[in-house]
Amino acid sequence: MKAVRVYGKQDVRLEDVSIPEPNDDQVQIKVKFCGICGSDLHEYSEGLTLPTKRHPISGKQLPITMGHEFAGEVVKVGKAVTQLKVGDPVAVEPLIACGHCDNCRAGKYNLCENAIGDDGSSNFIGFSDDGGYAEYANIREFFAHKMPAGMSYELGALTEPTTVAYEAIKKSGLREGQTVAVMGAGPIGLLTAVLAKIAGATRVFISDVSKERLQKAKDLGLTDLLNPDETDVTAAIKTAVPGGVDIVYDAAGIQATFDTGIRSVKKAGKVMLIALFAKPITVDVTNRLIMQGLDVLTTLGYNNDYPAVMAIIDQHPDLFNQLITKKIPLDRAIEDGVKTLAVDKSQVKILISPEL
Amino acid sequence: MKAVRVYGKQDVRLEDVSIPEPNDDQVQIKVKFCGICGSDLHEYSEGLTLPTKRHPISGKQLPITMGHEFAGEVVKVGKAVTQLKVGDPVAVEPLIACGHCDNCRAGKYNLCENAIGDDGSSNFIGFSDDGGYAEYANIREFFAHKMPAGMSYELGALTEPTTVAYEAIKKSGLREGQTVAVMGAGPIGLLTAVLAKIAGATRVFISDVSKERLQKAKDLGLTDLLNPDETDVTAAIKTAVPGGVDIVYDAAGIQATFDTGIRSVKKAGKVMLIALFAKPITVDVTNRLIMQGLDVLTTLGYNNDYPAVMAIIDQHPDLFNQLITKKIPLDRAIEDGVKTLAVDKSQVKILISPEL
Repeated sequence: MKAVRVYGKQDVRLEDVSIPEPNDDQVQIKVKFCGICGSDLHEYSEGLTLPTKRHPISGKQLPITMGHEFAGEVVKVGKAVTQLKVGDPVAVEPLIACGHCDNCRAGKYNLCENAIGDDGSSNFIGFSDDGGYAEYANIREFFAHKMPAGMSYELGALTEPTTVAYEAIKKSGLREGQTVAVMGAGPIGLLTAVLAKIAGATRVFISDVSKERLQKAKDLGLTDLLNPDETDVTAAIKTAVPGGVDIVYDAAGIQATFDTGIRSVKKAGKVMLIALFAKPITVDVTNRLIMQGLDVLTTLGYNNDYPAVMAIIDQHPDLFNQLITKKIPLDRAIEDGVKTLAVDKSQVKILISPEL
Repeated sequence: MKAVRVYGKQDVRLEDVSIPEPNDDQVQIKVKFCGICGSDLHEYSEGLTLPTKRHPISGKQLPITMGHEFAGEVVKVGKAVTQLKVGDPVAVEPLIACGHCDNCRAGKYNLCENAIGDDGSSNFIGFSDDGGYAEYANIREFFAHKMPAGMSYELGALTEPTTVAYEAIKKSGLREGQTVAVMGAGPIGLLTAVLAKIAGATRVFISDVSKERLQKAKDLGLTDLLNPDETDVTAAIKTAVPGGVDIVYDAAGIQATFDTGIRSVKKAGKVMLIALFAKPITVDVTNRLIMQGLDVLTTLGYNNDYPAVMAIIDQHPDLFNQLITKKIPLDRAIEDGVKTLAVDKSQVKILISPEL
């Protein structure tokens, strides 16, 4: 089969490889669509978290087939598979977890205590195990979720990034009637804002320096759009919502968005950090956190969210389809996909497909 | 009456002032004992959060009678007082709150949205309203809590700092059977560790560079004592509790304790910041927070805790009495109290009394 495999920093190859047999607890999936994530870009350009030696759980090391946002059809099942059958459409939850540490037992398998390698390799399929930039992928049944009847595979592939946003909202405890601000209108920021609206937030501010991204936010029905190059974001938020919003989501991950976030949230509010921060930040703990009664929460991946997220997407197909801005064949994944995403801010979600 | 009043940075005077009448919603308290807090030291030496103009809620400005850790006997009641009566022994919850903002309505009156002045003045009695370094104090009935029968006024005065620690533990969600580490063995660190044990934590590590403070921790029955000058605190904790403790409490408030804290807590654990940080800190958000699934929580003051804390203290009088290391007369408050606390690490809680 064809597979796009990463060998190291800026060394990604389209290759013909044999189709591996699924393990007893795995299903074999014929990949229909796989989204390209910003972290795929970092994986390609910087060699982000690549396993230079055998990963402690997956047992894999470079080369690795990229791709973690994918959906497809079950074409083969291992002997121990009990719930899924050949022909089932599934969305993949691309996590690697030991299943027996305290966090796994507690259902927080996204924070498995044994899934980070000594070499800093991560707990994601597509990074530390073979993923969806291929014609077929073998996935543990636990992490393959049957899609609602009639949902398109494109929307199935959108489940993963949507779940990143969903987990952030879930962990932050957002309630209907509250107000939020989202820093950054990239795919995760947009999805967070869209889900906050669906969750009943009464004001959803979203800020970005990119006009294209704010236009996309507008297309998605968001109305509280703020460009920090043109507006004092904190002042605008506090004019509309005296005291500030209940929760800020940082989907940008830089000092400036962190600072704007902690100033735009109300006293005793929460700041949820979703984006990875490329650099350390400076924090005035006393004046900006303790005296304001703020909690700074973080989120990484997701757990136990896929059924709910697929149900939400299935209820709003037109809305979520707007996030898919391009579809390309598998063999153009790097040239027309990863590299395009790095420069074209009008792109939200580019999907690759082995069938195009 | 005699009162120790602050006029500004390093300008504190023992004066004779008239006894003010209580407002309708206040009780007048004859002060029996008032503790000296580290923040009183900052108030004296640095002029911390002093109201240079009228405080938005108390209406007071300099000079202010110091002292916020006090207990005494009700000697007069305002017309609107309904629950307390003359003769009642009370511990004072020294907060100022508007009563009508969202946080006050939600019971989080310690994070009142209207209680911080434009000049940075705070929401504490003893800073923005007259406190307990005096023979008498007028306190809103809402903030005067009847002490358990037979509890000493010394222990009544200890309620306030104990409640600071209690709120931190409550907000962190500590459960019996969990493990914790406390950074710093000053009064709040010691109280946090003692309360964590009472709350059923199975391992309670406490670290400090001061041998006197670690000795006091030992006297209080704590056994997991760590001196960062002699031991790698994180390594010691992770040897005893593989993966790290469930919750870290930072009762020191410096870069080194923050860094040790985030390294000593388990994946998906919590770090609770109690101490004010004198300087901004640097945080590697991606590697030290997000990838570890950590939440950084803060606590400021307390709400709705006094009855529970007084019941705990009342059940363990010998334990809590060990924290009281000195009693001095009111007129020696600065010379033998505040200034001594700054230099003598063997002191935990010094109490002043107008009756000595």
